[in-house]
Amino acid sequence: MKTYSLFFLLLSALCHAGQAQPPKIESSILSANKTFMQAFSQGATDMGKLYATDAQIFPPNGATISGNTSIGPFWKGAFDMGIKKATLETVQTEKAGDQIIETGNYTLAGADGKTMDNGKYMVVWKSENGQWKLYRDIWNSSLPAK
Amino acid sequence: MKTYSLFFLLLSALCHAGQAQPPKIESSILSANKTFMQAFSQGATDMGKLYATDAQIFPPNGATISGNTSIGPFWKGAFDMGIKKATLETVQTEKAGDQIIETGNYTLAGADGKTMDNGKYMVVWKSENGQWKLYRDIWNSSLPAK
Repeated sequence: MKTYSLFFLLLSALCHAGQAQPPKIESSILSANKTFMQAFSQGATDMGKLYATDAQIFPPNGATISGNTSIGPFWKGAFDMGIKKATLETVQTEKAGDQIIETGNYTLAGADGKTMDNGKYMVVWKSENGQWKLYRDIWNSSLPAK
Repeated sequence: MKTYSLFFLLLSALCHAGQAQPPKIESSILSANKTFMQAFSQGATDMGKLYATDAQIFPPNGATISGNTSIGPFWKGAFDMGIKKATLETVQTEKAGDQIIETGNYTLAGADGKTMDNGKYMVVWKSENGQWKLYRDIWNSSLPAK
């Protein structure tokens, strides 16, 4: 009996240890996000190339934007309107077939460094010419509605 | 030369015809969304069962909600606060490994039938006990910011 109890105690401890582990995050996505953040803070002049040719973004308070040649100007517009820094913090990445689904939190800051918005995002990544590109990108604010 | 020209003309026509076709939509997802819409309009009392055990939703103007036992009450709360009808219109479904990624448009209406909000969503579906369940669910409004 005692041996069994110890066995189950250890098993239980192991299971809980397993649950407590944070989800594994793909380093390729962390790297791609680093590129995204740098490109944005440097003027967001060519963000389209970070997206797949047939990418779509779903910006809050606007219509779906399709194609990376249209997505690039969207981010340039956001920069010109006062957002100077976008911080992406990956919470989880999950492989799904050839794609990777990422969830995370974002923070947007102005020229004075003050937070303008923060919220959540979900991105589907796909590999295009050997590089991970944003394929589907949607986000929303966690701040209370005005 | 003429034969070649005709061949390429036909090939080009076929390619364009292929491009013009709307994306194939999984009927299982259309069916699951129908269940979602019905369950919501009937009081949204048990929406949690439509979500995977370890599902997450990312509601605008609020924090991430994890687990279907917490997601259920969120939708009940939305119903009680005045949203009486949710319409989901799938734009695209795409298989990604064992999961399905869906993008679409939603409309929310009140008791008087008037539209309270409309916007876009992205859902990752996964099969749990042989049934398609919402696993990741994020959306945002297409209406101008107030």
